[in-house]
Amino acid sequence: MTMETLSENKSYNGTQGVYKHTSSETGTEMTFAVYVPDHPEGFTMPVLWYLSGLTCTHANVMEKGEYRRYCAKHGIIFVAPDTSPRGDNVPDDEAFDFGKGAGFYVDATQEPWAKNYRMRSYVEKELPELIAANFPADMERQGITGHSMGGHGALTIALRNPERFRSVSAFAPIVSPLNCPWGDKGLPGYLGDDKALWREYDAVALIEDGARLPELLVDQGTADNFLEEQLRTPLLAQACDKAGIDATIRMQDGYDHSYYFISTFMGDHIAWAAERLKK
Amino acid sequence: MTMETLSENKSYNGTQGVYKHTSSETGTEMTFAVYVPDHPEGFTMPVLWYLSGLTCTHANVMEKGEYRRYCAKHGIIFVAPDTSPRGDNVPDDEAFDFGKGAGFYVDATQEPWAKNYRMRSYVEKELPELIAANFPADMERQGITGHSMGGHGALTIALRNPERFRSVSAFAPIVSPLNCPWGDKGLPGYLGDDKALWREYDAVALIEDGARLPELLVDQGTADNFLEEQLRTPLLAQACDKAGIDATIRMQDGYDHSYYFISTFMGDHIAWAAERLKK
Repeated sequence: MTMETLSENKSYNGTQGVYKHTSSETGTEMTFAVYVPDHPEGFTMPVLWYLSGLTCTHANVMEKGEYRRYCAKHGIIFVAPDTSPRGDNVPDDEAFDFGKGAGFYVDATQEPWAKNYRMRSYVEKELPELIAANFPADMERQGITGHSMGGHGALTIALRNPERFRSVSAFAPIVSPLNCPWGDKGLPGYLGDDKALWREYDAVALIEDGARLPELLVDQGTADNFLEEQLRTPLLAQACDKAGIDATIRMQDGYDHSYYFISTFMGDHIAWAAERLKK
Repeated sequence: MTMETLSENKSYNGTQGVYKHTSSETGTEMTFAVYVPDHPEGFTMPVLWYLSGLTCTHANVMEKGEYRRYCAKHGIIFVAPDTSPRGDNVPDDEAFDFGKGAGFYVDATQEPWAKNYRMRSYVEKELPELIAANFPADMERQGITGHSMGGHGALTIALRNPERFRSVSAFAPIVSPLNCPWGDKGLPGYLGDDKALWREYDAVALIEDGARLPELLVDQGTADNFLEEQLRTPLLAQACDKAGIDATIRMQDGYDHSYYFISTFMGDHIAWAAERLKK
């Protein structure tokens, strides 16, 4: 499992790196960012996955997410994958919310997307193996979070793999692609028209179908333009309530959908993860 | 003194704004960023100026500087101007280190630069008046900092106006344009070949010529590619030592010239300013 180092910069006494490898899942080169706090030789640390939103790459959270201070403090490795396959040979769409930058963390079954758009398997299987092989990561202690489409990714991946993640949170997640225009557009494109097949990519439907997490944390800004139509936070609150999932869903007054919101609450999410990722 | 609001986002309970106005100094529209912490009606707060480096606009530090957490904590307004005049009618140079994005905080005297490249007067006079008129700023309590070319700006502006700034610091500043290739290129272009006229734009020369500050803080990464040839930190240390200026100059092991370095030490610089800007 080879990878290439694109850049490494010292920050908060640790190393912010950007790396590239050839993915067998997507059939493309994939770039990702990893922050590793300063640590003694031979020491391993828990891993917090951060999945990004529509249009983003690994770079947005790396530049604007303000996580390094907290990861350094708590001794947590922070991994930020890209949001889709990239490259001239990868099919794309003109819209910002489908195709490149908009992989929705699914394994596509429809042409022409099926070959490359395998972000579910990439994030669930291939990238964790690469991280385990190349970084001082304790893979028995993983947490996951994400923003918007990446919040959807974090919730659905955790609901399908509850044994893997001790900590689950999200910033302004899309909670139910079955019930929003972004889902109505992206999921038939990648998965076809049979909505029964979309349910494993929908946090609310997964909970309705029996998936469980002990607890989760969600922050959602009240001034987020996407809240009512796309994100639909109340559907998650209702599903968790009905299922007995201890969901801490905080409506944050006056915050929007941007990294100005995410960075404000990043410290809380990393502290939440740290508490649950302790040995 | 009118200005236009381009954006305002809530962050760390305060407001990160971007604003535009027509500058009489530069003869252009100028964009700048201001972060105002949450505060009671009628309350005023001290102001910390941040001057950016070559190629930057107001946006780099706004996105990558990680200052809002600390400004919110200490109750400090953070102002980030642009680094040069902008616009199709403004003369430019193909190089990254002269012309747009490279105003060097001077008032140019040479053609074709003299009309627009008046960043000294813009930052020293015009923008402070605009800030005082439009934000809850206590202009009796100002501090200044900056990075690289902006560190040069912060040091030289403070040395020429020591009564105005209670707090002075810099990240990886150019300490002596008279003694580095960036200065050798930029200063004759803007100011002509008489090096005696450059001395008011050179922190080391200002100190040699009698300018004094009670103290200053500088952080400089040891892995900064520009350290030896362009930044020349030891010249500042020597000048301060000779002049009896209490200079805290910290060589930070393994840090480079990037915002990964700046953000790491931003909290220290804002705490330094906060201590000196208290009522």
